[in-house]
Amino acid sequence: MKPYCDYGLTLVTDRELCLGRSLTEVVDAAVRGGTGIVQLREKSCDSRQFYELAKALRELLRPRAIPLIINDRADIALAVEAEGLHIGQSDLPLRAAREIMGPNAIIGLSVESEADVRAAEAVAIDYFGLSPVFSTPTKTDTNTPLGLAGVGRIRPLTPLPLVAIGGISAANAAEVLAAGADGVAVVSAICSAPDPEQAARSLKKTIDQVRNRRY
Amino acid sequence: MKPYCDYGLTLVTDRELCLGRSLTEVVDAAVRGGTGIVQLREKSCDSRQFYELAKALRELLRPRAIPLIINDRADIALAVEAEGLHIGQSDLPLRAAREIMGPNAIIGLSVESEADVRAAEAVAIDYFGLSPVFSTPTKTDTNTPLGLAGVGRIRPLTPLPLVAIGGISAANAAEVLAAGADGVAVVSAICSAPDPEQAARSLKKTIDQVRNRRY
Repeated sequence: MKPYCDYGLTLVTDRELCLGRSLTEVVDAAVRGGTGIVQLREKSCDSRQFYELAKALRELLRPRAIPLIINDRADIALAVEAEGLHIGQSDLPLRAAREIMGPNAIIGLSVESEADVRAAEAVAIDYFGLSPVFSTPTKTDTNTPLGLAGVGRIRPLTPLPLVAIGGISAANAAEVLAAGADGVAVVSAICSAPDPEQAARSLKKTIDQVRNRRY
Repeated sequence: MKPYCDYGLTLVTDRELCLGRSLTEVVDAAVRGGTGIVQLREKSCDSRQFYELAKALRELLRPRAIPLIINDRADIALAVEAEGLHIGQSDLPLRAAREIMGPNAIIGLSVESEADVRAAEAVAIDYFGLSPVFSTPTKTDTNTPLGLAGVGRIRPLTPLPLVAIGGISAANAAEVLAAGADGVAVVSAICSAPDPEQAARSLKKTIDQVRNRRY
């Protein structure tokens, strides 16, 4: 059975943006503040360190039933029995990722355009990461921001959850959801916040307000 | 069932050392020359490119029953159904790697000391990579070379095949085997050879001569 995911607020990690605090400390605070999913993204450490970080988050998150999603590395996800895998357009092909991860894993795919969404249609994925919605200093290798209009154009193309990422904060999360996203993912808005718990809580409150208006 | 491995001569790839030739061209030549195992090692490309390279080698090697071993990335190994995985001391823990790869995969572990061999004893691996035997320009993050004496000290510690790597060429392969290695692995001796097929053939001839003296 697929684990339950609340796509409202995802934290995507970046250790370098944690202002000297440990990753587990920041993740712990983020979860207390209402983060529903944690995606571990590591781009420059060796496999052993990636594995150790993933294992530490696994132990932190499992008792709270918060899904852990591993970015790019299906082997790390399998090794720590993470709930899912997030892949980008230059990671493993989706079909290979699904085969490795099995039918119950959560698999998310980064898409930067309507074409990316259409190309992915045929394969079993669980959510799309829309990236970047706004311009962001965290990733520099991305396309022109989709903007709210881009979110609006992609929304009708798929019934899958759309998680928007890129330059999102409590100040603009409401309009991103209003434009059609099911949730938002943030990096620096939590990792670099003076108080990550409070930052998460503020984002979560905004998200819940929009959701309550919807239903 | 485990695939059959002839540990005599392993090619470890390094695209940057191929003198502008394609990796498949060099691997193809190496196999014609007598290379028994190919290990794909990629340290700086994205996962998609790694996957595509692995798939290309897979297609090249499978019809010839030459095992393909993937360095570090168990997910890539699984995705292309490679015969095995080679891990170092800073890669996935051995136990996690075996669990992911399954009982029939070939798993090799890099060891740089007798302590590394002893630490690995309890877990099911298939061969040890002894590294570095001699000093080598290919890897700069390794310990002091083991030397022939180091190979001799490690030999009695395990019945598993010992594959020596680091600064090995046709000129010194015989003494490495005489010191106790079951085979040698090379990077530049084949990748950067003017004629990779001839380089592999020359190494294989030396290896077979030592083997014939043994039995």
